[in-house]
Amino acid sequence: MAARHEQIADELRDGINRGQFPAGSRLPSESELAARYGVARGTVRQAVAALGAEGLIGSRQGARRVVIGSGARQSFEELRSFAQWARAEGRRPTGHVISTARRPATAEDVLRLQLPPGTEVLYVLRVRSLDGAPVLVERTVYADWIAEAVEHIEPDCESVTQRLYDDVGLVFAYGEHVLDAVAAGTRDAGLLDIRRGSPLLRIQRVTTTRDGRPVEWSDDRYRSGTVAFSVRNASGTNPLTRRLGPG
Amino acid sequence: MAARHEQIADELRDGINRGQFPAGSRLPSESELAARYGVARGTVRQAVAALGAEGLIGSRQGARRVVIGSGARQSFEELRSFAQWARAEGRRPTGHVISTARRPATAEDVLRLQLPPGTEVLYVLRVRSLDGAPVLVERTVYADWIAEAVEHIEPDCESVTQRLYDDVGLVFAYGEHVLDAVAAGTRDAGLLDIRRGSPLLRIQRVTTTRDGRPVEWSDDRYRSGTVAFSVRNASGTNPLTRRLGPG
Repeated sequence: MAARHEQIADELRDGINRGQFPAGSRLPSESELAARYGVARGTVRQAVAALGAEGLIGSRQGARRVVIGSGARQSFEELRSFAQWARAEGRRPTGHVISTARRPATAEDVLRLQLPPGTEVLYVLRVRSLDGAPVLVERTVYADWIAEAVEHIEPDCESVTQRLYDDVGLVFAYGEHVLDAVAAGTRDAGLLDIRRGSPLLRIQRVTTTRDGRPVEWSDDRYRSGTVAFSVRNASGTNPLTRRLGPG
Repeated sequence: MAARHEQIADELRDGINRGQFPAGSRLPSESELAARYGVARGTVRQAVAALGAEGLIGSRQGARRVVIGSGARQSFEELRSFAQWARAEGRRPTGHVISTARRPATAEDVLRLQLPPGTEVLYVLRVRSLDGAPVLVERTVYADWIAEAVEHIEPDCESVTQRLYDDVGLVFAYGEHVLDAVAAGTRDAGLLDIRRGSPLLRIQRVTTTRDGRPVEWSDDRYRSGTVAFSVRNASGTNPLTRRLGPG
């Protein structure tokens, strides 16, 4: 259940994305919004602050804020689910589990999932395709405490997020993503039907609960030219960080 | 001049990044923060909403919010400036302008910079190195109305952002970044001293003023293994978008 200011932020965000408030226009004033939603101005301010932090609206100029952003943003869930995203793009997603195994956590698993050494984790290797062409090799490791629930989900389930919520009440709340480029090794090249050494966009992510407890981490590698990721930033809040690479 | 709630958000963000509020701890309550900063609770709520939107803190649990994030975030300016970022990482940045030219806007320039067709733009090709090793090929196109001010800046200027503010009052306020992987062509391979076909992390960005007017766009290509980019997201606000690639 979202707080009232989050609901208002969602509605305003939808209005911006649907073109009700196009880029360059101004949002209604705080007092107008407060009257429209029947809430205190402080509640409107919280909603507006969140949109400002996202870079969708500019700083106050007079009483009203300028709309900067246009173009829909993806939900957390749509970003997480390849199948949901592909369908929204009008493409046909398919997925194929190559292997699945319980195994002791590696040093990397221990670090990323904050588990005691030796804990058993669930490892799943999948290939995902768009319109029949393989585009993504996904290596996901699930923490021990969620492994059994994940194993009960059918492989072609469109929303693992929804199923884990329905089945065990799990809420995915936060993610951290690291993006870089790597050359395809023999295995990746074979799975994606490309030449060894071809460029891949790699995105490594850790997803956590509301308490910050890691649920899963994944190493996803996209065939070059198939998928890109975009991020918007603002001088007040910048969600994008440059860091030294592993090399 | 940042608003009071933005200043408070900055201080709390610093506190989280410096470890004063480590991940898993709780922020002081709204009333404690209001008393500490001598502001109304509504002002504290705005600051806290912004940190929530960034995924640094979780939803309210009782009166206090759980700290999720740790690890410093970069400022907009540090992300923009390769040299500032490199120095902050303890590395020695150097830059070398390969060519600079005024030329008519291409179709891509017109689209990205929202210029009338035929407008003259400024094109700059640079190579940037870390500790003497080339890591980045940067192709930047500046809009006609800022080209002259850019030409007056010395090539090794550490902060173009600061200089353009000092010289002509320009404020960079928003950016949109698209990340993907590409193979090095002959030119990129030569400039980066790598083999043709090697993987490159490409980040294409458009930077705008507070009014959303595009100032520059850039195509930056990093040698694989040198640099990565990270993004944090939250179920309420997701700054990262997956999109179909150009291929």
